[in-house]
Amino acid sequence: MYIVHVHVHVKGEYVEEFIRTTIENARSSLYEPGVARFDVLQSQDDPTHFILVEVYRTIEDSAKHKETTHYQQWREKVAVMMAEPRSSMKYRNIFPDENGW
Amino acid sequence: MYIVHVHVHVKGEYVEEFIRTTIENARSSLYEPGVARFDVLQSQDDPTHFILVEVYRTIEDSAKHKETTHYQQWREKVAVMMAEPRSSMKYRNIFPDENGW
Repeated sequence: MYIVHVHVHVKGEYVEEFIRTTIENARSSLYEPGVARFDVLQSQDDPTHFILVEVYRTIEDSAKHKETTHYQQWREKVAVMMAEPRSSMKYRNIFPDENGW
Repeated sequence: MYIVHVHVHVKGEYVEEFIRTTIENARSSLYEPGVARFDVLQSQDDPTHFILVEVYRTIEDSAKHKETTHYQQWREKVAVMMAEPRSSMKYRNIFPDENGW
């Protein structure tokens, strides 16, 4: 799997709106055949810090995701909400194997 | 869900041994009723950097995990492999909801 952790810091006044918008995007992303999981996590220590845990079957699937309408709409909507630029960390799965997602 | 991301930096010579030992621990952890997922990820940029993605149903379940034999054996075995102390980040799930894990 090609796993991306997108770290997002949101301006305080946008937390609720970011959550609504991002749940919509996550739900739509699960319909992409190359997306195995699309989890949205909120930090317990800092509620303005989120991680999008995006689990793609291949690196090509992560590129296809960026071509979807739901991603592009999400990106536009959240632009004003960012407290700082997003950062992405790339991982591969050690456990479980390819069948465990 | 009570979600813990444990960041681990391993000494280069221990990468393979760490993977073997940590897969064992992850597999055993899935038998705990309070553990919904226990993923082990390796950084694509730095193969000595791992994240353990531990998804517990409650905070109490994360405490119970630390009482298990498999956790305690893992902790002992990996002690010599650490390049620096582990750090833990705590999250809650925004999406999916409690049934999606």
